[in-house]
Amino acid sequence: MKQVLRSAFTKPVDDVIFKYVASIDCDRHLVECDVRGSLAHAAMLEKIGVLTVKQAANIKRGLEQILAEGLMLRLEHEDVHMNVEKRLEEIIGADAKLLHTARSRNDQVALDLRLFVAQEQAHMVEALKKLCTVLTDKAAAHADVVMPGYTHLQRAQVVLFAQVMLAFHEAFARDMARLAPRLISPLGAGALAGSAIPVDPAFTAEKLGAQGFFTNSIDAVSDRDFAAEFIFACSLVAIHLSQLAENLILWCTAEFNFVKLPDEITTGSSIMPQKKNPDCLELVRGKTGQSIGELVNLLTTLKALPFGYNRDLQETKPPVVRVAETVRDSVEVCTIAISKMELNREVMRAASLDEYLFATDIVEYLVAQGMPFRDAHSKVGELVKTGKKFSEIPLETWKQVGINPDVVQLVNPEKSVEFRQSPGGTSPASVLSQLGKSKIEN
Amino acid sequence: MKQVLRSAFTKPVDDVIFKYVASIDCDRHLVECDVRGSLAHAAMLEKIGVLTVKQAANIKRGLEQILAEGLMLRLEHEDVHMNVEKRLEEIIGADAKLLHTARSRNDQVALDLRLFVAQEQAHMVEALKKLCTVLTDKAAAHADVVMPGYTHLQRAQVVLFAQVMLAFHEAFARDMARLAPRLISPLGAGALAGSAIPVDPAFTAEKLGAQGFFTNSIDAVSDRDFAAEFIFACSLVAIHLSQLAENLILWCTAEFNFVKLPDEITTGSSIMPQKKNPDCLELVRGKTGQSIGELVNLLTTLKALPFGYNRDLQETKPPVVRVAETVRDSVEVCTIAISKMELNREVMRAASLDEYLFATDIVEYLVAQGMPFRDAHSKVGELVKTGKKFSEIPLETWKQVGINPDVVQLVNPEKSVEFRQSPGGTSPASVLSQLGKSKIEN
Amino acid sequence: MKQVLRSAFTKPVDDVIFKYVASIDCDRHLVECDVRGSLAHAAMLEKIGVLTVKQAANIKRGLEQILAEGLMLRLEHEDVHMNVEKRLEEIIGADAKLLHTARSRNDQVALDLRLFVAQEQAHMVEALKKLCTVLTDKAAAHADVVMPGYTHLQRAQVVLFAQVMLAFHEAFARDMARLAPRLISPLGAGALAGSAIPVDPAFTAEKLGAQGFFTNSIDAVSDRDFAAEFIFACSLVAIHLSQLAENLILWCTAEFNFVKLPDEITTGSSIMPQKKNPDCLELVRGKTGQSIGELVNLLTTLKALPFGYNRDLQETKPPVVRVAETVRDSVEVCTIAISKMELNREVMRAASLDEYLFATDIVEYLVAQGMPFRDAHSKVGELVKTGKKFSEIPLETWKQVGINPDVVQLVNPEKSVEFRQSPGGTSPASVLSQLGKSKIEN
Amino acid sequence: MKQVLRSAFTKPVDDVIFKYVASIDCDRHLVECDVRGSLAHAAMLEKIGVLTVKQAANIKRGLEQILAEGLMLRLEHEDVHMNVEKRLEEIIGADAKLLHTARSRNDQVALDLRLFVAQEQAHMVEALKKLCTVLTDKAAAHADVVMPGYTHLQRAQVVLFAQVMLAFHEAFARDMARLAPRLISPLGAGALAGSAIPVDPAFTAEKLGAQGFFTNSIDAVSDRDFAAEFIFACSLVAIHLSQLAENLILWCTAEFNFVKLPDEITTGSSIMPQKKNPDCLELVRGKTGQSIGELVNLLTTLKALPFGYNRDLQETKPPVVRVAETVRDSVEVCTIAISKMELNREVMRAASLDEYLFATDIVEYLVAQGMPFRDAHSKVGELVKTGKKFSEIPLETWKQVGINPDVVQLVNPEKSVEFRQSPGGTSPASVLSQLGKSKIEN
Repeated sequence: MKQVLRSAFTKPVDDVIFKYVASIDCDRHLVECDVRGSLAHAAMLEKIGVLTVKQAANIKRGLEQILAEGLMLRLEHEDVHMNVEKRLEEIIGADAKLLHTARSRNDQVALDLRLFVAQEQAHMVEALKKLCTVLTDKAAAHADVVMPGYTHLQRAQVVLFAQVMLAFHEAFARDMARLAPRLISPLGAGALAGSAIPVDPAFTAEKLGAQGFFTNSIDAVSDRDFAAEFIFACSLVAIHLSQLAENLILWCTAEFNFVKLPDEITTGSSIMPQKKNPDCLELVRGKTGQSIGELVNLLTTLKALPFGYNRDLQETKPPVVRVAETVRDSVEVCTIAISKMELNREVMRAASLDEYLFATDIVEYLVAQGMPFRDAHSKVGELVKTGKKFSEIPLETWKQVGINPDVVQLVNPEKSVEFRQSPGGTSPASVLSQLGKSKIEN
Repeated sequence: MKQVLRSAFTKPVDDVIFKYVASIDCDRHLVECDVRGSLAHAAMLEKIGVLTVKQAANIKRGLEQILAEGLMLRLEHEDVHMNVEKRLEEIIGADAKLLHTARSRNDQVALDLRLFVAQEQAHMVEALKKLCTVLTDKAAAHADVVMPGYTHLQRAQVVLFAQVMLAFHEAFARDMARLAPRLISPLGAGALAGSAIPVDPAFTAEKLGAQGFFTNSIDAVSDRDFAAEFIFACSLVAIHLSQLAENLILWCTAEFNFVKLPDEITTGSSIMPQKKNPDCLELVRGKTGQSIGELVNLLTTLKALPFGYNRDLQETKPPVVRVAETVRDSVEVCTIAISKMELNREVMRAASLDEYLFATDIVEYLVAQGMPFRDAHSKVGELVKTGKKFSEIPLETWKQVGINPDVVQLVNPEKSVEFRQSPGGTSPASVLSQLGKSKIEN
Repeated sequence: MKQVLRSAFTKPVDDVIFKYVASIDCDRHLVECDVRGSLAHAAMLEKIGVLTVKQAANIKRGLEQILAEGLMLRLEHEDVHMNVEKRLEEIIGADAKLLHTARSRNDQVALDLRLFVAQEQAHMVEALKKLCTVLTDKAAAHADVVMPGYTHLQRAQVVLFAQVMLAFHEAFARDMARLAPRLISPLGAGALAGSAIPVDPAFTAEKLGAQGFFTNSIDAVSDRDFAAEFIFACSLVAIHLSQLAENLILWCTAEFNFVKLPDEITTGSSIMPQKKNPDCLELVRGKTGQSIGELVNLLTTLKALPFGYNRDLQETKPPVVRVAETVRDSVEVCTIAISKMELNREVMRAASLDEYLFATDIVEYLVAQGMPFRDAHSKVGELVKTGKKFSEIPLETWKQVGINPDVVQLVNPEKSVEFRQSPGGTSPASVLSQLGKSKIEN
Repeated sequence: MKQVLRSAFTKPVDDVIFKYVASIDCDRHLVECDVRGSLAHAAMLEKIGVLTVKQAANIKRGLEQILAEGLMLRLEHEDVHMNVEKRLEEIIGADAKLLHTARSRNDQVALDLRLFVAQEQAHMVEALKKLCTVLTDKAAAHADVVMPGYTHLQRAQVVLFAQVMLAFHEAFARDMARLAPRLISPLGAGALAGSAIPVDPAFTAEKLGAQGFFTNSIDAVSDRDFAAEFIFACSLVAIHLSQLAENLILWCTAEFNFVKLPDEITTGSSIMPQKKNPDCLELVRGKTGQSIGELVNLLTTLKALPFGYNRDLQETKPPVVRVAETVRDSVEVCTIAISKMELNREVMRAASLDEYLFATDIVEYLVAQGMPFRDAHSKVGELVKTGKKFSEIPLETWKQVGINPDVVQLVNPEKSVEFRQSPGGTSPASVLSQLGKSKIEN
């Protein structure tokens, strides 16, 4: 095969160089995509009369055999394309040589990567769907659990635990929309200029289940926007997962103690026998850097490339493969973690009785009574300044700031969440409505 | 204003700390967005009866005055929100204090940034439209100019200059689709839990021309996906521009000499009087790093934040502002450069006569004559191996490899491009069809 | 000035292009460096006889006046170099035209940025020194405070609070070493090829207090490694600060409650009157992304540039300027925060009584008694598995696992830290020794 | 082994979770480092009397056998540490259980990575030395070859080809200095607090050939600055290589044609038989993104981690391993490319006759004759404005601008480089001096 591509060369390539330019490490993930692309290409060549019915059938048979058997790539054949072609030749003989007609490695490799991305988009959406289901199930199963809501990691207002789960659900729902599979076929663009053979790219695209085919042959072989979009979308998934993991890591500390992570998802220490660590969640958080790093890798690689295919583009494949695998694993791990975690609802409720959590309730109550908002804020602040709990503030002080001490009755977590009835707020009614909506989406 | 927010504090904030947490440098870009958001909020408060018709009219008048006059932000008021509120108070008096009812800085700042992004998306699309028009105009005006097409920066096959321009057009058309303005209103989410006041977020959203409003109040105040999406889309624009710039920089070297950049867009040297440098294009290329860097900035900032608003989110604003401005400027510069550059079409055609550019034409011709593709590739390779031009290879050699020397007639750039009639290829017919399509899009 | 550089041009540059290539926004930070470089250059020109004593004195006088007065840059002069030259001409007249002899903007701009980096390295080291002093002061002032040490954010073993402060001290000490100012002068490299005038780069370097001068003229004008090194070093500072900030943010939550951040360094909420948020620390954490982003910016900009000066290099200046300012501010903010924070030592000690913190003490005690380590780990694990505190485990269970229940006496935080006497460990003696060492370094 | 660490657990870890937290994929690169660390640790345990002479000898024998045989890691043992310990147990029996005394995985994993980095630093320096030798050899062998020097990729002044090679030599010499191996041992820090067993970290450090040991136990287990420094240094190597590659890619285009890349280092096309592409150099350029991306990965991972060991730190290993391998390969490929490339010295000289290259020579000549620099620049600019070569400008024009037409004699590449005698300039004498200096360094 090396010879075929080197028709005009008198000397073989240096071994170090050959190994450096080969891409079989990454390409083993692309075997199926490459074969599927070739099946569509062969069908098209038959349709336009370049292959006879018999040749096409022969090629199809061989490719389907490879699909069924799988293929271990060999370094000597440099990449997935040559490996598949060589294997095909072993199976069906000389007809294999006809397959590359009206095709270049440039449009072929672009197609393989596009097929791979579309496949991984579908897998990721499926994995996210499971995570979303677990989030809403958890929310539904603990619909009455209250907890402190935080801003700046300081206790802010009481919220329902379900409202927090549903916040993450929203983020992952956006991710799913961003990852909806989409395929534009570049096959037929040739090396860069199109083909002198009357290829039918629309037919190939349809065979592949693509949404369409390329408009411009030069763009078709050099465009890697779709790969960047995929890694970017995965990066946002990774970031949302890191935020989820961060919360769980905090919640399972001795200090927060809101959740218990059972033995199945925690890890011990080589030296400290008491430890049950949330390693898997720390790794979910820690692997975020990889996605962002690979996004940088890919974008930096694309920067300032001259038009047409440049071999730099080979380096767009490993980031896609690595990120797809890592992020999917992380989604799965979080799905298990959410599913297995156990709430310490008593602890959560106890924390929700922290009286300062109700300062805003008092403010809003005063506003409802007709006091201007800024004044209410200021008066309640005066009470806080005493350093005392609302329930311990002497009557005199209440009088001084001019607030009826009866507002202490607002210190009630269940009432507080009930209070926030605005659309999308944390009231039980709102959460129920969100749950209904999400059930349709999942 | 500092006092208002610090109702429970006994000591003022340290000056260094105050300056550090203030955001007026960046916020001056958000004045208009902040005021527009407040106008919608005030209208909603009136609708639900929290403001009287008179109060609402008063507030509206004040805000519109600010919109008309503009506003210089003052450090002492820390951010755009407090600056606007303070200015409003100067104009309309105490009614200004009512505006913040049922609103938190958390949902307000999220809205401001969303409005800004939507506005900048629209501006970017407009700028890209102009660039696309210039690209297609240039292509149409030089529809018959041939040039070498490159892969690996080595001469590959002859293409039309127009095909190269249209390849870039495709990339920017994708960018425009990715940047289509879209707005989801977070107003009504409050600090994180929704509101006890019966706000109407749907009404506010409609007032703002948004596509909808938030589903979950916690998600509403912490979601910055839209900002990441915007910077990512701008990064791809920057990368496409860098590729365009790279080509122009190469083309205007003494060695390529395909285009001349006129005086208006070139820059001199402090020491070498002969120099006319493509500085503006080098800067277009050089500024790509900024977009990628700001994308990293924003994604890294979001990583592992606990749920709810955290002040880290303030750092999501400057990347958006900086990238929006830089990338738009770069689009404009490229529009001017494409518009002003002059083709050296004689040089381009002369380069297109390099005979090896036609090696594939010969291969494809032989394939059309019935020779298997891999054999044709090999035979033409043998000819190349002689180191001679096709037109100088002796008859004997042709015979040895078994190719009819008449194929030398294929060495003709115009015929060569005519040859590539496949859809999306570089033939004049294909280019004409692409031009027609792009005219509708632009 | 535009004319001078455009001797061979017939048309002026387009206004949009001119504004785009100008760099005065960033260059205003470089005025002093530019003038200092010119002072050294003029002295050298005098030394080699290119300037007369009188011309040199004239130029020196003018430059020193600019240094004293400062200089507002004007867009029409494009960059700092031309602004300084024009201003010099206003002050001293025609002699100003002699200053650019044997110098190009290429070696000049490289020098300016190197001078700026050296200056900012010194400033950063100074700021870090103050932070280190505050850290050791805090450690020394609370040398006897115990607290839980964490791994995986789970309680692990008791440590001294001072040991934690000193851990951060170590990180910042490394940062200071990495930021030690260093200057290699590129002046004399000309545009790229050196000079035909017998310049004396060693003299200029010495005048500037540099450690040496360039070896190769082409490398001198294109090398920006020093800028990357600076931003990288600042990124590590930012990361260390983010880790410090993260700990303080956790420690001042209601749940940990280990420290109290006083009013001077906390911020209120527009809606929740009780809130005292650690905004400044969240911003320290949030600004980490900027440093990493700017590092990406600079490295991406340098990628694949052809040899010699390219205008892309202009884009290496803003990252340096932005990062220097931001990171220095963050160091200062953390210095204030550490200095002002108040320890809740009772809470810290109470948390240190969590009995599982002593599991390793028991293991190590058993090992000291001759039990193989892995067995001791296993036995203590059995005890933990009961779910009971060590002090509540019945005698019978102790017997079953074969451990003497007297080990319960090990549950003593002060004894526990005393126990870890190994060099660099958390014992009071070790901490004292570290404090002694750090006092010399600070 | 899983049991040992899970003394307090009642349920086994979930299979998906176990696979996710395992690190054997990366750890297979760390086997040798782990064993070397254990050898030093065992020697120390013997020295302080924790191990008997016989036990220590036994352990040593077992570890040396592993070193000699190598070790295939098994997923079931999770990481390199447990794999080595398990294998040791197979070889020497129960004594293997004693090895982990006074050590935690936290200080052990930090040591392994530090040993790996030091080893890879040494390898990289060695590889860079070879590259530097090839660069200076090439420079020395073609010491008289002239070529156009470029700024902005526009022809600027004539330079020696050797000066360009030596510019790259300078960059790689800086890289070597940055990569000088350095090792600080963290062993003895335990999990985070030091040890109750009287370990001797200085002894261990000396055994390992380290420059010293840790100062603070908490810092010792969490510090990954050294890993970031290594990846940063590799990123700069990658960037310098990308710049070298970019130049070669340009030089071997049909348009520049300064160098010929022979068959051994070029690659063919699947469709165009004439192509000999510089794929290996495009990949060198393309792989730059990986280093920058992994730097982002690592820095982002470290951001905002609380003190002590967090499992996120496991993610700092793969970037180090990947970058070390890739960058070393790229250095080797460039060494081969420089060594094999053939200069087209006639083409280079012909390009050096481009008369505008001498505009600065004329300016500097006029300055030497006493004309103020800015005037000389302006006058020569007037000549350029004619659009004529200097040798074709009519006498009358020369008179008009007031320059003696004899300056045309300056149009001589060899004279021009001879002219730039300043230190570090492109004159033959300067190049000879640089070569002498570099020979000592290489």
